[in-house]
Amino acid sequence: MNYRMLWRLLSIILLIEAGLLTLPLIVAAIYSEPLLPFLLTIGILIVCALPGLIRKPADSRIYSREGFLCSAGAWILMSLFGALPFVFDGAIPNYIDAFFETVSGFTTTGASILTEIESLHRGILFWRSFTHMIGGMGVLVFMLAIIPSSDGRAMNLLRAEVPGPQKGKLVPKIRQTALILYGIYLALAAIEVVALRLTGLPLYDCFINAFGTAGTGGFSVLNHSIAGYNNPAAEWVMAVFLLLFGVNFNIYFYLLARRFTEIKKNEELRVYLLIILVSCTIVTVNTIESFATVGDAIRGSVFNVLSVMSTAGFSTVDYNLWPTLSKTVLVMLMMIGGCAGSTAGGLKVSRVIILIKNAVNEIRHVLKPNSVRAIRLDGEPLGEETCRGAANYFSLYFLIACASTVLIAVFDHFDLETNLTAMLACLNNIGPGFGKVGPTGNYSGYTIFSKIVLSLDMLFGRLEIIPMILFFSPASWKKT
Amino acid sequence: MNYRMLWRLLSIILLIEAGLLTLPLIVAAIYSEPLLPFLLTIGILIVCALPGLIRKPADSRIYSREGFLCSAGAWILMSLFGALPFVFDGAIPNYIDAFFETVSGFTTTGASILTEIESLHRGILFWRSFTHMIGGMGVLVFMLAIIPSSDGRAMNLLRAEVPGPQKGKLVPKIRQTALILYGIYLALAAIEVVALRLTGLPLYDCFINAFGTAGTGGFSVLNHSIAGYNNPAAEWVMAVFLLLFGVNFNIYFYLLARRFTEIKKNEELRVYLLIILVSCTIVTVNTIESFATVGDAIRGSVFNVLSVMSTAGFSTVDYNLWPTLSKTVLVMLMMIGGCAGSTAGGLKVSRVIILIKNAVNEIRHVLKPNSVRAIRLDGEPLGEETCRGAANYFSLYFLIACASTVLIAVFDHFDLETNLTAMLACLNNIGPGFGKVGPTGNYSGYTIFSKIVLSLDMLFGRLEIIPMILFFSPASWKKT
Repeated sequence: MNYRMLWRLLSIILLIEAGLLTLPLIVAAIYSEPLLPFLLTIGILIVCALPGLIRKPADSRIYSREGFLCSAGAWILMSLFGALPFVFDGAIPNYIDAFFETVSGFTTTGASILTEIESLHRGILFWRSFTHMIGGMGVLVFMLAIIPSSDGRAMNLLRAEVPGPQKGKLVPKIRQTALILYGIYLALAAIEVVALRLTGLPLYDCFINAFGTAGTGGFSVLNHSIAGYNNPAAEWVMAVFLLLFGVNFNIYFYLLARRFTEIKKNEELRVYLLIILVSCTIVTVNTIESFATVGDAIRGSVFNVLSVMSTAGFSTVDYNLWPTLSKTVLVMLMMIGGCAGSTAGGLKVSRVIILIKNAVNEIRHVLKPNSVRAIRLDGEPLGEETCRGAANYFSLYFLIACASTVLIAVFDHFDLETNLTAMLACLNNIGPGFGKVGPTGNYSGYTIFSKIVLSLDMLFGRLEIIPMILFFSPASWKKT
Repeated sequence: MNYRMLWRLLSIILLIEAGLLTLPLIVAAIYSEPLLPFLLTIGILIVCALPGLIRKPADSRIYSREGFLCSAGAWILMSLFGALPFVFDGAIPNYIDAFFETVSGFTTTGASILTEIESLHRGILFWRSFTHMIGGMGVLVFMLAIIPSSDGRAMNLLRAEVPGPQKGKLVPKIRQTALILYGIYLALAAIEVVALRLTGLPLYDCFINAFGTAGTGGFSVLNHSIAGYNNPAAEWVMAVFLLLFGVNFNIYFYLLARRFTEIKKNEELRVYLLIILVSCTIVTVNTIESFATVGDAIRGSVFNVLSVMSTAGFSTVDYNLWPTLSKTVLVMLMMIGGCAGSTAGGLKVSRVIILIKNAVNEIRHVLKPNSVRAIRLDGEPLGEETCRGAANYFSLYFLIACASTVLIAVFDHFDLETNLTAMLACLNNIGPGFGKVGPTGNYSGYTIFSKIVLSLDMLFGRLEIIPMILFFSPASWKKT
C-alpha cells in the first residue's frame, strides 16, 4: 500500500477540480452573478491539495489495489468538494442535498432533489451540468491525458474507472489512448452544441444539454426537462447523440483508424442497436394512443427509449402515465444500460450478452456433460476469468440492489414502485424512475439517510461496485 | 434418447395419478357429492396410460437427459390431466383456468384464480389441496419409492426433481432414500393434522391445511385463508410447521440417524434460521402499530414471514397494507425461499449463500489476484462446477423473470407492483404477491395468455428451470 503516492494522486485530482471550477466562475462573471461561491471553493481545494503536492514520493509505484482506491477516493472527494458551491450560493442550503446533487452530476445519474431550477444562478446551473461532462469520461482518464506517467501505473488507474468488461487496450500507449478518447468525446459534444444551436436553442442551453447528453447524465435547464422547449428538431438531435454516446468509444476509434472489420464483428454494437430497435417498436405501438399524431408517438418513444437506455434520463413526456408494457420495457432498459466503454451506466450490453451466453452454456452442458465449449464474443473465445467475473459482478449488483432497497425503505414509506425504481435509477445512473421519482417528480422527498444510501448507489453504479467496496473495506487499507 | 422408456415412465406417472385420484373420490363419496368428475378422469388416465405399459422396452437405460425430460413431462402431464376434475365438476369451467389452478397446486405455489371457494364441493377442494401434498415431495420421488429400479437410472430421475444444489446422497440406495424422505414427510404432516385438530379445527380443515403446509403450497378452505379461523393456537401450530417444512429434509434424516455433528455444521440451516429471526424482528417492530396488541403483532409477523419465506403463501392479515419496509422484506424473502431439499420454492438459501460467497471471492480476488481460494460450504470446499452452476442458475432465473414480466404486461395492464410480484410469486412458487394479487386478491383478472405464462413460471420455478428449458428445446429430443 503506497499511501504517499495515493495521497499525491488525490491531491492532483483536487487541483484539477479547482481548475475545472474556473469555467463556471467565468460563466458567473459573464452573467454578473456572485463569484464568491466558486472562489471560496477553489481556495479550499487549493489549500487541501497543497500539502500532498509539496514532496514527490520516492516510490511512485501503483498497483491495482491503489488504482481502485484512488478511483473510489477521487470520485468521493470530488463530490464532497464539488457540493460546496451549491451550499455557498444558497441554491441548495443543506449540505447532504448538495452532496446528493453533486454525486448525481459526477456519476452522470441526473437524479435531482431540486424542484425549481429555472430561477437558479446561471453559473451554478452550469457547474451542475458541467459535472456530467467531467464525470462522463472519468476523472482519472482526464488526469492520464494531461499528466505524463509510466504505463504500468496508468493501466492500473484506468482499469478501475472505464466501465464494462473490456477486451484489451486500443493502442500500446495509455496516455495516447486517454487523449484520443477525450478528443472523440469533446468533438462529439462540440458537434452536438452546434447542431442544437441550429435548431434554435439558446447557446447557454445548447451547452448544458450537450453536457447532459455527452455524459449521459440528464440534468437540464428547464423544470420540465426537454419537454419545456417544445422543439421537435432539438429532440431528434438529442436522440441521435444519446444513441451515439451509448456506444463503446472504441467503435469511434476504429472508425477514425478505418478498421471497419473490427466494427463489423462487434457483437455488442449489433445487440445494442437491436435492443433499441425492438424497444422503440414495442413502445411506439403500445403508446400510440397517448400521442396526438403517429409522428409524435415515434419521436416520443424513440427519445425516451434512448434516454433511458443510454441512462441519461432526459424526458419529453411523463412516461409514468404510459401503459404497463412500455413501463416494463423501460425498467428492463434501465437495468441493461449502454455499451461497455461508453459514458452510459447500467449493467452494460456486453455483460448482459455474457450472462445470456453463460446461461445457454449451462443448458448445453446439461445436454452434453462432456463437451466443453468456450464462450465467444466478437468471434474470439472469452477467458474463464471474464465469464466468471461477469456472473459474479451480477451477483454483487443484485445483492447491493436488494440491500439498498431495504435500507431506503427503513425511513421512507413510498410505494414499492417508487422505492424500487429510485434505487434502480440511482444504481444504474439513470436519474428519474417511476412513481414519485418519475419524470415529473424528484428525490426531494427522501430522508437524509436514504439520500446517502442512494448517493452511494450512484457511486457503486458508476465505478462498477468493486472500487467502492474496496474503499470501504478495512482489509484493503492494510500496509502490506 | 430412449423414447420407449420415457413413454413407459410417463405412463406409470399417469397410472399413479389415477391411483391418487381415488382419495378425493372417497372424500366425495363420504360427503355424498358427484363422483363422476373423478371417475371420468381416472378412466381417461387409465386409457391413456395403458398403451405405454403393455410392452416393456428392451433397453431400460435412462441417462440424465431422459431424467430431465421425464421430470418436466411428468409435471406437465399430471397438470394437464389433473385439471379435468375441476372442469367436469363445473367448479372451474374454463380449462386454462383449471390448468393454472392445478399447476399452482402441483408446484405448491398456491396462486388461485378462484374468488369463492367455500361453496365448492368438498371432494374438489380436497383434490385441489392434495396436489400440494403430491407436488411437495415430488412425483418422481414417489415413483422411486414404490417401484423397484436400478440405481443409476433412479439417480438420473431424482437429480432432475429435488430442488437446490445438493452435496451428495444420504444413503447409498436411492430407493431407500426416497422411502425415508417420504416417510419423514408423511410423519410430519400427520403430526400437524393431530396438532391442528387439538386447536379445535374441523378434521377436514386439518387435512387441507396440513397438505398446504407440508407442500408449502398455501391453498386453504376459507375465502380469507387462515385469517378466517380467528384461531391463534392454529396459527402458531401452522407457523411451526411452515418453519419445519422449509428445512432441508436431510436434517431430519440426520436427526433420526443421530448424526448431530452434521446438523451442527450445516451452514444453510443456520442462515435460514438467522434470516427468519431478523425478518420477524424487523417486521414485528415495523408493523406493531397496525395490530391491537404486541402479541398479535408478533404472531401476525412471524406467521406471515414464515408463510412467505417457506413460499406457502397462507395469510392471516392483508400484508398489502403493511409499511413499505415490511413489504420490501417480504419481497426479499419471496426471492430467497426455503432450504435446498425442502418442499419450499425460491432461489433456496444455500444458493444465495453460494452467490454471496462468490461475490466475496470476487472482491478478494481483486485484492490478491494471485490467491485462489475455494468456496466452502459446511466447512467443505465446493467444486468449481457447483459455484458456476449457482451463478449461471441465477442468470437463467433473472432472464426468465425479465422475459415473463414483459410477456404478462403485453395484455394485462395492471400496475408494475402487481405484475412484478405476480411473476415473482409464481416463479418462486409462493402464491400471493402484492397489489391486485395480494393476500385478499387473486389471479382471476389475468388474461388467458398471462395465465399460461404464469403457469409456465410456476413449473420453471418448481423444476428449477433446466428440465423445462430442455423439454421445450428441440435439440434435446434428437435421436442421438
